[in-house]
Amino acid sequence: MAHFADQLIARLRELGHPLCVGLDPHLARIPAPFRSGEMVPGDPATADAVERFCAAVIERLAGRVALVKPQSALFEALGWPGVRALARVVERCRAADLRVLLDAKRGDIGSTAEGYARAYLAADAPLRADALTVSPYLGFDTLEPYFKEASQSGAGVFVLVKTSNPGSGDLQDLEAGRVPVWERVARGLAAPAGALRGPATGWSSLGVVVGATYPEPAERVRELLPHALQLVPGYGAQGASAADAVRGLVSGPRGLEGGVVNSSRAILFPTPPEASATAWESGLDAALDRAIDELGRAVA
Amino acid sequence: MAHFADQLIARLRELGHPLCVGLDPHLARIPAPFRSGEMVPGDPATADAVERFCAAVIERLAGRVALVKPQSALFEALGWPGVRALARVVERCRAADLRVLLDAKRGDIGSTAEGYARAYLAADAPLRADALTVSPYLGFDTLEPYFKEASQSGAGVFVLVKTSNPGSGDLQDLEAGRVPVWERVARGLAAPAGALRGPATGWSSLGVVVGATYPEPAERVRELLPHALQLVPGYGAQGASAADAVRGLVSGPRGLEGGVVNSSRAILFPTPPEASATAWESGLDAALDRAIDELGRAVA
Repeated sequence: MAHFADQLIARLRELGHPLCVGLDPHLARIPAPFRSGEMVPGDPATADAVERFCAAVIERLAGRVALVKPQSALFEALGWPGVRALARVVERCRAADLRVLLDAKRGDIGSTAEGYARAYLAADAPLRADALTVSPYLGFDTLEPYFKEASQSGAGVFVLVKTSNPGSGDLQDLEAGRVPVWERVARGLAAPAGALRGPATGWSSLGVVVGATYPEPAERVRELLPHALQLVPGYGAQGASAADAVRGLVSGPRGLEGGVVNSSRAILFPTPPEASATAWESGLDAALDRAIDELGRAVA
Repeated sequence: MAHFADQLIARLRELGHPLCVGLDPHLARIPAPFRSGEMVPGDPATADAVERFCAAVIERLAGRVALVKPQSALFEALGWPGVRALARVVERCRAADLRVLLDAKRGDIGSTAEGYARAYLAADAPLRADALTVSPYLGFDTLEPYFKEASQSGAGVFVLVKTSNPGSGDLQDLEAGRVPVWERVARGLAAPAGALRGPATGWSSLGVVVGATYPEPAERVRELLPHALQLVPGYGAQGASAADAVRGLVSGPRGLEGGVVNSSRAILFPTPPEASATAWESGLDAALDRAIDELGRAVA
């Protein structure tokens, strides 16, 4: 049984940078060379076109990043053919030695949470990701099924703590007993994070989501959860700098480690939709080089 | 454009009870007559068997309840064939004059939330439900895309406020400024709930989820959101009484109104898995009669 955090950290050390690329196939932005006539959600031909686009992205990411993060919503928006395309994209990633963090932000109670854990984290799951994002609003008991599945299958689980959007403070920043809600979430994860630490690196397969747009919480979460990997959205198209994005990372044997910084649109859509395949490929490669360089040199 | 709350309330008045039946096809509990050999997640034959089971349930619910609530997790756990089965089940419900509240508890930011809204609420969505459950942890700005889609397509949106599970208090009950977090959520929904009121009944297509296991919050939410429909889980298998389940409902022209009370397993699985088709049908009918009678007579 492979341990998610141990495997990811080993690969991140080989590559020397924390970039994770988000697979967010916004239909309107898919470059012309991959499109198939009118793109219609629900139509299998449209999902096939999206799959071809993702395959071309994966080909360019192979050997360059450790982790990709498909955004479930944008595949679900294509109906069941989109979910089938997502399953195939996940298989392609695996074949290209790219680990997959499925961004689905699931959250439900009891036997329903077990259903989500079985769907995406079980060793024999029909759509097995290496890790999954989950939401804590329903309470810590509702996260247990994911942690249990992770301890059995080796998968990773990333819990939303402080998200990158402008309104993330509406609930997450409310002060409850002199501590914001997001900190209460982080504190409640200490015990399971400890239980999911890897034998090789000590890093935990229980990770947290902390937006690059709010660097102070990322530092505090690092203090509270020293062994939890941080998934950091908000870098790139959302406007946070590389320096802000790595604030929760720590020194490791090959530079900063302990998390990944995600960029989606800035990498995937570097050119206008009407650009040629060659122009899009060069644009993606250049955007990838830039992000890898910037994050590889960033200092916390 | 049909208005979700107006349509639902009209049908609830015709039927005279607030029962909503949850379609939670737990694989291990599907009765023998519907099973197809070994049931394997990811196998289209397994998803077909689940679809046959749901079709039989829908046949017995037609004409008796206003709303059904498919649990997305349990279809997703079957891989993409499960999502295809879910789409077909939704179509079957519509053909049987049953409205569909898809229980998916989605929640994400910006353009990703727009993706979920397009996936399940848009008029031309590939898997168009009449309403969707969503989670508020990421903030009120992340709920706007669902409200916008609802105002355009007429669909309903149910926001998690106070859930029915034992640990729901971990975050939801935290006191923030002398008010629990769940009440902060409810207060933040007042304006959009007002904007989504129906012309015929005054009820809003913005609803809230308040567990029957916590009746006091349901009453308080009713004060704060007088026009929001309440989806009340926790009655039946989860142990709450009919009297507790209707605490947030109010007097209407045909008895209590302003919400629905969900029961899933107690209705769907009244007999052991090895029971005959006839025994299962009689068991389901009897469980349905019992719940309808109990809720139809309940007094808030």
